[in-house]
Amino acid sequence: MDLAEARVSVEDRGFQFGDGVYEVVRCYRAAPFALDEHLGRLERSASAIELSLPEGRSVLRDVMLEAVRRSELPEAVLYVQVTRGWAPRGHAFPEAAKPTLVVTVRPARPAPPERLLLGVPVITVPDERWLRCDIKCTDLLANVIAKERARRAGALEAIMIRDGAYVTEGASTNVFAVRDGTIYTAPEGPRILSGITRSVVLRLARESGIPVVEDFFAPSLLTRAEEVFITSTTLEVVPCVRVDGLPVGDGKPGPVTRALASAYAAEVERLVGNAPKPA
Amino acid sequence: MDLAEARVSVEDRGFQFGDGVYEVVRCYRAAPFALDEHLGRLERSASAIELSLPEGRSVLRDVMLEAVRRSELPEAVLYVQVTRGWAPRGHAFPEAAKPTLVVTVRPARPAPPERLLLGVPVITVPDERWLRCDIKCTDLLANVIAKERARRAGALEAIMIRDGAYVTEGASTNVFAVRDGTIYTAPEGPRILSGITRSVVLRLARESGIPVVEDFFAPSLLTRAEEVFITSTTLEVVPCVRVDGLPVGDGKPGPVTRALASAYAAEVERLVGNAPKPA
Repeated sequence: MDLAEARVSVEDRGFQFGDGVYEVVRCYRAAPFALDEHLGRLERSASAIELSLPEGRSVLRDVMLEAVRRSELPEAVLYVQVTRGWAPRGHAFPEAAKPTLVVTVRPARPAPPERLLLGVPVITVPDERWLRCDIKCTDLLANVIAKERARRAGALEAIMIRDGAYVTEGASTNVFAVRDGTIYTAPEGPRILSGITRSVVLRLARESGIPVVEDFFAPSLLTRAEEVFITSTTLEVVPCVRVDGLPVGDGKPGPVTRALASAYAAEVERLVGNAPKPA
Repeated sequence: MDLAEARVSVEDRGFQFGDGVYEVVRCYRAAPFALDEHLGRLERSASAIELSLPEGRSVLRDVMLEAVRRSELPEAVLYVQVTRGWAPRGHAFPEAAKPTLVVTVRPARPAPPERLLLGVPVITVPDERWLRCDIKCTDLLANVIAKERARRAGALEAIMIRDGAYVTEGASTNVFAVRDGTIYTAPEGPRILSGITRSVVLRLARESGIPVVEDFFAPSLLTRAEEVFITSTTLEVVPCVRVDGLPVGDGKPGPVTRALASAYAAEVERLVGNAPKPA
């Protein structure tokens, strides 16, 4: 149906409690990139909050592929959300609610080419989120506020600093710093969402012989680094050239970021070529 | 309309981002208790996230009173939720979204009389919520999980411990301990939601000459205390007689809790008698 007509109950637990999980998948030439990895993470998020998905992985995959097909959009953002369903309001899990499944498809806005050529400014903000950021749930108000602060500062992203001490991730991205040729990024665990793009990029880095350290690093590294970049499903790999107004390195996208952005684009080509396509 | 028919867009920011605020108001004999205090807090929550309420206080009050009137429910739970409205998905505030306003009325379940006579068991859990618990937003998954843990333990409430060090509040209540005749409770600020019932009860305590200390206290006080109680709009004042299986005091509701529960009931009578009633 048309997106504008799709509705859920005002007593859906996704609306009243943020009691649900979601995934965002990028489709290239009508093929969802890394769909199985996204479905695996959806299962892990659901499991972490003891939410039973309404369908198994193969049915969910078929529903999502069918949605992409019907949308007739080659370059698309495929969104799936599962909530604990409709129930009379009460915090504890409802006895007999049926999970709500929402699948939507929207046109993808391709990244402006100058983003990769010139890089983008980012800001830092305190990480005020809850302590289970590994769960991809819709309780995103802290992320919303951080992203809005970035937008107002003319920046593409807000990088979050936990306890004033260490970098976790961006409002909707993972964050990487390159220092002496080594890539630093926060480790998987409850303080970050383990990005699908993050894991692809780290694999590509290792395959290229670039050392990777998955450990928390201090905010000061963001400006002492030679390069900083962010990754996400929809943004892919984006060089960050200013942090809170201060230049990163020489203020231009660096070679490691450029190499990984190219490798990621090639990986997309490779996997999309092999991916299951809507019939 | 019938609650089962009320719907919002699947792209409402309340559903996709937890980007909204809410209030729960108890109606006694069709009169909302402390409605202006709730509307004031709704305004503060909205302001904290820079959400413009769709109507001023007097129109909101009229809409809510009208909803109570149409429900024909004398003992009711009146719920109001305002979100940043419908917009194509993106974290930052949308340019031109119109806020969504939802008002619902449900029958109130009166408290079982034995709850006040016998007290209830509670458990403690780590406080894993975000750092702006003063904002009454719908990002409630941490609260949902805590309440579900309580339910499974046969307890009425989960009391949250921040950083293993101090008691903040319950999943949907404020928490009080009585020691040497003094009431201790966490102070207003970003780590707790400033409860309307909390403030009424603290005023009643002070009017009765009971000393009140609004400061964080250690979890150990919960079992060293003579009394522990919780408060909320729908639960009112509830004595807690076991914490994680250990008795509080002599394991029975104590005199301070009983006196405040009576004073609260009298305050409800007094204010409901004077409250504006649906025509």
